[in-house]
Amino acid sequence: PGDDNGSASESLLSGFKTIAVLRDSAREKNIFIHGKIDDQEAVVILEKTPIREESLPEIFKDSRLKLEMKNDIYSTYQLQPPPHLNEIKTTVVCPATEKHVKKYLRQETFLLEESGEDYLSITLPFIQSQSFSVQWVYNILEKKAEADRIVHEDPDPKVGFVLLPDFKWDQKQLDDLYLIAIVHRRDIKSLRDLTSEHIPLLSNIRKGGQEVIQKRYSVPATKLRVYLHYQPSYYHLHVHFTSLSYDAPGCGVERAHLLSDVIQNLEADPKYYRSRCLSFLVRADDGLLRKFKDAGRV
Amino acid sequence: PGDDNGSASESLLSGFKTIAVLRDSAREKNIFIHGKIDDQEAVVILEKTPIREESLPEIFKDSRLKLEMKNDIYSTYQLQPPPHLNEIKTTVVCPATEKHVKKYLRQETFLLEESGEDYLSITLPFIQSQSFSVQWVYNILEKKAEADRIVHEDPDPKVGFVLLPDFKWDQKQLDDLYLIAIVHRRDIKSLRDLTSEHIPLLSNIRKGGQEVIQKRYSVPATKLRVYLHYQPSYYHLHVHFTSLSYDAPGCGVERAHLLSDVIQNLEADPKYYRSRCLSFLVRADDGLLRKFKDAGRV
Repeated sequence: PGDDNGSASESLLSGFKTIAVLRDSAREKNIFIHGKIDDQEAVVILEKTPIREESLPEIFKDSRLKLEMKNDIYSTYQLQPPPHLNEIKTTVVCPATEKHVKKYLRQETFLLEESGEDYLSITLPFIQSQSFSVQWVYNILEKKAEADRIVHEDPDPKVGFVLLPDFKWDQKQLDDLYLIAIVHRRDIKSLRDLTSEHIPLLSNIRKGGQEVIQKRYSVPATKLRVYLHYQPSYYHLHVHFTSLSYDAPGCGVERAHLLSDVIQNLEADPKYYRSRCLSFLVRADDGLLRKFKDAGRV
Repeated sequence: PGDDNGSASESLLSGFKTIAVLRDSAREKNIFIHGKIDDQEAVVILEKTPIREESLPEIFKDSRLKLEMKNDIYSTYQLQPPPHLNEIKTTVVCPATEKHVKKYLRQETFLLEESGEDYLSITLPFIQSQSFSVQWVYNILEKKAEADRIVHEDPDPKVGFVLLPDFKWDQKQLDDLYLIAIVHRRDIKSLRDLTSEHIPLLSNIRKGGQEVIQKRYSVPATKLRVYLHYQPSYYHLHVHFTSLSYDAPGCGVERAHLLSDVIQNLEADPKYYRSRCLSFLVRADDGLLRKFKDAGRV
């Protein structure tokens, strides 16, 4: 983006009108806000940045401390660091649809068990009826957007993929390393579509992703968690690479499937993911939960 | 504290000398540092503060944004908020003992892949050589200890189990509900020992546990995460029941195995858990990691 963009965006949020806080986490120091920018619906996500080891000397040298409490060997303070060490990572979705707003709203969750038949009779028709757009994924694959963020590409149309940092990772420290491999093939919606036919693709992503991450970030395979989500947040096959030391959102057993397990399961049973009952989380307001209820499956 | 304290403490950390970063969390935006204040050992903990709803108008009004990326409706920025909204909570332990330093030190972890053969040739001999005592488990099963904590018992010697709260759960609220089912059979060390022979046992635990938790705590099966650990923390088969809303330690995909998946896998392949490669975490100081290294498997 040129300077024009820069100065236009500098004040983008000065007229932001908050409608509601959708979610916040004191643990993660983030907040998800629904509001309006001019007359457009928007979701704004603010998240404080991690404290980096390199910045410690400066934090200690130039900061001011205010004593809060002292007891024996323990004391607590408020520290005001130099302003430039205090950025807040900001994500703006604008114009946002109702679906975006719902996505970020904290909701009660339920565990569903979906058989292969449930998928065909309930989930698949639901996904199709929603016509989720994955245009932004195609923009990446076609280099129409985020081209400068691509870390690695294997252009093969059958087994190729692009690897790029996830939005959640600011790439400033390796502790919360988070990359996504997006496949070039456009005919695989999720884990459910995978058969033994896709083993070469999956193995290529696993090997290629690990090699690039080792080479570029010096993070070995033994320090990586490589997995798929079910349900995914978008229906174009992608694989998550996160640092093992990072307790990444969505790496719980109720959503994540290790790529190494997926490959083994397909090797043993080509139709494993077509036939198995898969457990996954749905939120109370997810239309899919309603469909499962209507079908008498919950 | 009076003004004297205030001004003395204001510069307390300006001469802080970092010895080592003990631990940090990109998710939680904190960092634990071992160092020296003058000539005294100290541990300093820095943690960014949560973003408060009340401060949003000021953040939006007076902040400057720097565009990082734009793709379709999504854009990301660095936001520099007014300095006074950017405090870092600081905790100082000084003088600190070696025990304090160890307490905060994070152990590095590694992901191992254990084949069925690795289990027999490396892991099983290691477990046996350690002669981990599970006497405390037998005490529970024989009602010699914790008898008053048992929530439910199925006394059947083949498929029976006792259900009791995990120590991590204080039973005061349901948000972090955590119960453990311990089997009466004493011949099953872990997931690795399970075959189709054990399906009736596993199904009984699943059904019995869910029914009791529904009846006693009014928590339905759709709000429960039911799983086994691999590696487990003790080698006598047990199953974890945690509230889906609780981000319980050990429910990540690198350690947890959903009981419903385990049952299905054994139904499809009686020897699934004898033959598969299983991934699991080890800490740098775990003797098992050493054994895998000695065997050239890492």
